[in-house]
Amino acid sequence: MGFSWTVTSRFGHARTGELQTPRGTVETPAFMPVGTQATVKAMTPEELRSIGVGMILSNTYHLYLRPGTEVIARAGGLHRFMNWHGPLLTDSGGFQVFSLGEMRKVEENGVTFRSHIDGSTHFFSPEIAVEVQGILGSDIIMPLDHVVPYPASYAETEDAMWRSIRWARRSMDYHQKREEQALFAIIQGGMFNDLRRTCSRELMEMDFPGYAIGGLSVGEPKTLMYRVLDAFVQELPEDKPRYLMGIGSADALLEGVKRGIDLFDCVLPTRIARNGKAMVGEGYLVLRNAGFAHDMSPIDPGCSCYVCQNYTRGYIRHLIKANEILGHRLTTFHNLYFLTDFMRAVRRAIQEEKFDAFYQQFWERFDGSPEE
Amino acid sequence: MGFSWTVTSRFGHARTGELQTPRGTVETPAFMPVGTQATVKAMTPEELRSIGVGMILSNTYHLYLRPGTEVIARAGGLHRFMNWHGPLLTDSGGFQVFSLGEMRKVEENGVTFRSHIDGSTHFFSPEIAVEVQGILGSDIIMPLDHVVPYPASYAETEDAMWRSIRWARRSMDYHQKREEQALFAIIQGGMFNDLRRTCSRELMEMDFPGYAIGGLSVGEPKTLMYRVLDAFVQELPEDKPRYLMGIGSADALLEGVKRGIDLFDCVLPTRIARNGKAMVGEGYLVLRNAGFAHDMSPIDPGCSCYVCQNYTRGYIRHLIKANEILGHRLTTFHNLYFLTDFMRAVRRAIQEEKFDAFYQQFWERFDGSPEE
Repeated sequence: MGFSWTVTSRFGHARTGELQTPRGTVETPAFMPVGTQATVKAMTPEELRSIGVGMILSNTYHLYLRPGTEVIARAGGLHRFMNWHGPLLTDSGGFQVFSLGEMRKVEENGVTFRSHIDGSTHFFSPEIAVEVQGILGSDIIMPLDHVVPYPASYAETEDAMWRSIRWARRSMDYHQKREEQALFAIIQGGMFNDLRRTCSRELMEMDFPGYAIGGLSVGEPKTLMYRVLDAFVQELPEDKPRYLMGIGSADALLEGVKRGIDLFDCVLPTRIARNGKAMVGEGYLVLRNAGFAHDMSPIDPGCSCYVCQNYTRGYIRHLIKANEILGHRLTTFHNLYFLTDFMRAVRRAIQEEKFDAFYQQFWERFDGSPEE
Repeated sequence: MGFSWTVTSRFGHARTGELQTPRGTVETPAFMPVGTQATVKAMTPEELRSIGVGMILSNTYHLYLRPGTEVIARAGGLHRFMNWHGPLLTDSGGFQVFSLGEMRKVEENGVTFRSHIDGSTHFFSPEIAVEVQGILGSDIIMPLDHVVPYPASYAETEDAMWRSIRWARRSMDYHQKREEQALFAIIQGGMFNDLRRTCSRELMEMDFPGYAIGGLSVGEPKTLMYRVLDAFVQELPEDKPRYLMGIGSADALLEGVKRGIDLFDCVLPTRIARNGKAMVGEGYLVLRNAGFAHDMSPIDPGCSCYVCQNYTRGYIRHLIKANEILGHRLTTFHNLYFLTDFMRAVRRAIQEEKFDAFYQQFWERFDGSPEE
């Protein structure tokens, strides 16, 4: 089986492709829903499959702390534990650990941190991150990286970037299961174009099967993120998949695809769903608003998902106001369907050489407020 | 279409039957899951149907307060609002209002109470309860009744019983949509056998299409509840369905069926599910317990439900510990499947004249602790 990625069509910098993994093929560009704690919140694996989700992401940091690798090893790996038998990507825990702020201490060998659950002390090294992901058995794994906050100084960003590069090398050297698990690189370098280019080149020399872009979508304006991407993405190898981490709004997915990105993940669609915010072609509906109480139309009249075929805005608003689990389920289902369907449309536009028109029509309709 | 109930088989006092409603037929004895706020917590209507649920219950009190009858009227009734197109029973709100304690005041004309949501003042009379349920459009409706707590004095219980009888008469006089909605009586009388018998006789004289038993399962020992039932249930008409309100444990369902009860409802299976307690043939599994962390067997190895076919105790325990919605979903699905399947087996045992053996085998296996 093994791992490969093949370009199937191009339009400008945008491309479609087929990502082969030991657990099936994923059409790219693709959005990966996030299953932080071995579950995409409020969804079953069957529902994800019914929507057309190709690959999901889970979090090494969270699973290492709870339920712990021993439980997942006993279950026969993360796929069997959570009953998701399709392709699965795990991040290294770098982003989570460095988000802990005062609760972690970084040294060259690795990072010591305290659990957000019980305050207990733990140590992650690049080798441990690979080891843990080996036990999880994910199809694509990530090296431990040093993520800096936004904004960060040039010196701090550069220091973390070089550490991330050294850690990527150590991860690659330690990684054994190359046929079963593809280890991607993570490009760091903050908002500094020259650091992004340097980091890309250093990692490209090591020849990874895929290149992730970390340290973006960390609070900077979207326009700045797009400018940073413009500075280096075209230098990445044409024949390797590119994964922009932490992106989950339709507009940013589209802008990423336009710049040649193939994979995305984000908690955005599931998190805003639980706050009663629904994704539609025009942007977002805040279903809590009183104006929807008597609204007997579906979330998105143009949507063909289970939720839009069966439930009204007024009913879903009631569920959300009453804090009912079904409210979380219905909005989550719709949002994930919306993004998955959006990516299907994006792929079709590239394949049919209509991406320019698709892009323009999207922006004529879309008004991104209020995203958060 | 209209409403009817036909006995299809008997074994001792137990009986099977077919309850016809304008929205389909329900095989009895049946357990009705509770959808307090126009949703059976954590479940979709499709999932309820897939399990074999025949009829569900919803709460007039809760729906009247939120989203309000105007919203549900606008949606075309409760069935369309919540996307449940099968038979639906609503209670009158009596139990909820009288559970408010200091927040309500009863007079002969009706009861004034304050909303548990925002403290606003409302008034319910027997006529208003029928009116509201007319707007909801449920297939079986309940008259407003005066429920006393446990324990209650003879005088207090008798007073409330006579008021409930007078209110039942007023409800019947006010009720117009007799072809579309069946109005059941509710027998009160607390733990006093003579009051139960008096109440039954008074209500039977008015000739209702079904008889509910209220004011039990309010904190009294189960053995006392069974003794109260023994005092009057056999005096109820043989050809009318009997509905024991607020019962949802397998043992009490079985004891009720044995005494000739046909319908039951309770939040028990869904409420304990959200606390991580699962129903099995032996009683209950407290899935939060550490002992289940490494348990890779299904909740109930003998169960053929979706959850038991796909998920382990260890995984579900993890979801519950991590407070994941999917944990609530899986335990709720299993518990409702368990009770629905249990009632299927009960009906089969009666039809096949094996109810005695079924009853004995149940009690050889069942250990009801820890129920709560």
